[in-house]
Formats: sequence, structure tokens, C-alpha cells
Amino acid sequence: MKYFEAIEIGETLDLGSHMFRAEEIIRYATRYDPQPFHTDEVAARSSLFGGLCASGWHTASVFMRKMVDAYGHQARLMEMAGDPVARLGPSPGFDELRWLKPVYAGNTIRYTAEVIGKSKLRSKAEWGLLTFRSEGVNQAGEPVFRLVGHTLIERAPEG
Amino acid sequence: MKYFEAIEIGETLDLGSHMFRAEEIIRYATRYDPQPFHTDEVAARSSLFGGLCASGWHTASVFMRKMVDAYGHQARLMEMAGDPVARLGPSPGFDELRWLKPVYAGNTIRYTAEVIGKSKLRSKAEWGLLTFRSEGVNQAGEPVFRLVGHTLIERAPEG
Repeated sequence: MKYFEAIEIGETLDLGSHMFRAEEIIRYATRYDPQPFHTDEVAARSSLFGGLCASGWHTASVFMRKMVDAYGHQARLMEMAGDPVARLGPSPGFDELRWLKPVYAGNTIRYTAEVIGKSKLRSKAEWGLLTFRSEGVNQAGEPVFRLVGHTLIERAPEG
Repeated sequence: MKYFEAIEIGETLDLGSHMFRAEEIIRYATRYDPQPFHTDEVAARSSLFGGLCASGWHTASVFMRKMVDAYGHQARLMEMAGDPVARLGPSPGFDELRWLKPVYAGNTIRYTAEVIGKSKLRSKAEWGLLTFRSEGVNQAGEPVFRLVGHTLIERAPEG
């Protein structure tokens, strides 16, 4: 990532896509969200979703993975170019997490993130706070996932 | 769960506690949040967290598991007592998810949920919308996790 100062509001990052396979949906849900429409293909058919679909926390977890991968990929490119790479700090949290449509087994979700706000922190001179909106869209172009997130990112060293 | 009508604002549910073992922290993070302070005990020591700690999405995933378990437990008690059990519907999402402090390997987090709002849905006569605030507190009594959630719950059949 670039330093806080170099990031512009409106910048959008393509985080790449992920196919939710039945096996992975069941593995996540067995551990963290064991409801029949997330763990059992047959029971899911007669559930209100009509088919096996991913836990909402699973679609959020995959969003996080795509963020980490996109950051790592960009960092490697910048290192190869000899540019300094800003560190990502901890996230204070998220807002407006929305599960707009079910993510069914076999669906492919493409995630993006757009920078929608920046602020300096009085208490932490080396970090800036980025606010971004992320969206996940399925293979039919329908938004299925949305959130507003916040994360700390390193500021450029003083002159 | 009781039907929507029988649930009172201010009701608080103890969701039980969970110990975050290093092995589980690493397993979750390797798949969904592969940053060194979540996946590598040695690298974590020299990170800004100072030790191996759980991905924030992992603490949220465990919150979901505790919700599902608490619902299942209550449903079984009600079934044994011969009471009708209301179905839980899908959640439209969450707000104000906050990671207040790191959850380190070995920490035990107790989760609770308090009902803070109820509303009927004009579009869906069989469901009501519950809003709740959930909190996770560590073994030292410090809040580490908080969110405001929404979920659909079945309304009582018309008498």
C-alpha cells in the first residue's frame, strides 16, 4: 500500500473473486454457523433459502482474505519497484455490514473496495484512518455483500 | 426462541464463553486473515500487537457460533417443555462492529446479547425484526468485541 498521504478518496481496488464451493461452505459453517441451510445440502433445499448457501460471516471472512491478498500483492509490486510500503494497522471495526442476497454453493463473488474517507488521528501521529466501502457482486452482477470499513494505515515519514 | 411477540426489549442472553487457543487462531487466520500476528507466534511477538491474537473476523465468527448454540439450547428446552419454538430468519446485517482490544491466544471471551429494539415488517407478515447489542468480554472483564445486530424472528401464529 501507498502511504496514507498518497491515497485518494475515490480510489477503487479490485480485490478479485472467489468461488464458494459446497465443501468450503459446509466446513466454515460446521465450525462457526451450524444451521442446516449452511451445513446440509438436502436440508437446505427445504429451507427458506431453497439451497445450500454460505454463512454471512463466511462471506465476510472471504472479503478479509481478499483484502489481505490484495495488500500483499500490491506490497510485492511496490517492493520490486523499490518503493517504500506503508504498513496496515489494526482495524477499529466495521459499519453497515449488509447481506443483500444469499451466496449459494457454486456462486462466484467479486469483491471491490473504494476509499470513501481519510482522517488524521491526533492521538497517533504515525497512523491515518482510512474509511472504505466494500462490495461483493455475484456472477449475475447482483450485489450480495456490502460494508463500510475502517483501517489504520501508516503515514509517510516526515520529510 | 420465543415468538417475536413474547420477546421484551432489555432481555439479555448469556451466550457462554470461548477460549481462543493458538491452534484455532492460526487455523482460522491461515485461511481467512493470513497476517503474521494472527498466524505466527514468533513473528507476532515483534508485531504491534506484541503477541499472537485472533483475527477480528474470527472473534465475530465465534460470536455467531455462540448465538447458534444458545438458540439451539433454548429451542431444545422449549421443545421438552412442549412449547412452540419460533424460527430464526436470515439476518439483513450488522452495524457498529467494534474490535476494542486484541483477543490473545489463551484469552477466554464471554459473549452476551441484549435485545434493544423490535419492529414489525410491513412486507413480511410472518416475521418480526429484532435488534440486539452483543458484547464479548475477556477474562479480565475488559470488553473486546461489540456489535449491533439485526435478525428476523417468527411471529406468533394468529390466534
